[in-house]
Amino acid sequence: MRILGLDPSLSRTGWGLIGAEGNRLVHIAHGAIPTRAADPLPARLKILHDGIAALIAAHAPQEAAVEEVFVNKNPQSTLKLGQARGVVLLAVGHLSVSEHATRLVKKALTGTGAAEKAQVAAMVARILPGCGPMGEDEADALAVAIAHAHLRTATQMRVSA
Amino acid sequence: MRILGLDPSLSRTGWGLIGAEGNRLVHIAHGAIPTRAADPLPARLKILHDGIAALIAAHAPQEAAVEEVFVNKNPQSTLKLGQARGVVLLAVGHLSVSEHATRLVKKALTGTGAAEKAQVAAMVARILPGCGPMGEDEADALAVAIAHAHLRTATQMRVSA
Repeated sequence: MRILGLDPSLSRTGWGLIGAEGNRLVHIAHGAIPTRAADPLPARLKILHDGIAALIAAHAPQEAAVEEVFVNKNPQSTLKLGQARGVVLLAVGHLSVSEHATRLVKKALTGTGAAEKAQVAAMVARILPGCGPMGEDEADALAVAIAHAHLRTATQMRVSA
Repeated sequence: MRILGLDPSLSRTGWGLIGAEGNRLVHIAHGAIPTRAADPLPARLKILHDGIAALIAAHAPQEAAVEEVFVNKNPQSTLKLGQARGVVLLAVGHLSVSEHATRLVKKALTGTGAAEKAQVAAMVARILPGCGPMGEDEADALAVAIAHAHLRTATQMRVSA
């Protein structure tokens, strides 16, 4: 079973693809889809949407996982994030899509819901040996995919508004 | 020239289509795309996106106009609005898309940027005789289309983030 983890953001959406075979997790691929701030918003959203659609066409994941959003920022950032998240969720909408709370993602990877980003990234590298160095967005995307693999058998939360 | 005005919202996205021939504006159609709160978020976003895409296929507007977003609400509402707005902007992205400040929309219709919603709706009905009774979302969508027809010759603001 292939799981696509996503870390949506208007400027740079991270993605990570893992395979889950029983209890064994394998790294398949990861990357990020950047957009240029100078481009019109609809064009940036299309780049994100089409980038995810191309990934799905290439790798055929069965399930997608995104982190629950932390919206306690300034409203303009939340709006931007929402717009990016909307087109990313649209692109994965025909898969089984799950949302996991940040705290649960951290706990699934490190054993504590209060882990720092660096701890999570270190665990990603340990759980998926050979994944190589990567940016924060890609590590976050792989982290939610790993957490999903752990959590999906327990409670599968469907994304709802 | 046909202009599609949009009032994006996750629960109910209003749309209004007008024709602009020189200084003359004509009502073509209006409506709303509702989604069910009980449905998963990706399914709701798909209904919005595909609804707008079907409208464009049926009516072939050349330009689209949306109101600039008022984000001074609670963050969860802003996130929902952002997600809806993202897929709506994606659906119209191949048209010329403009964003207009609420104050300018009100001013274009009523002469004052501080007009009440009811005043704006009354002006929509007056500018587009025969459009018939309609809900608030549809009136808002027609209002931004009308304002766009007035403003586009002056300054055309491209949507940017």
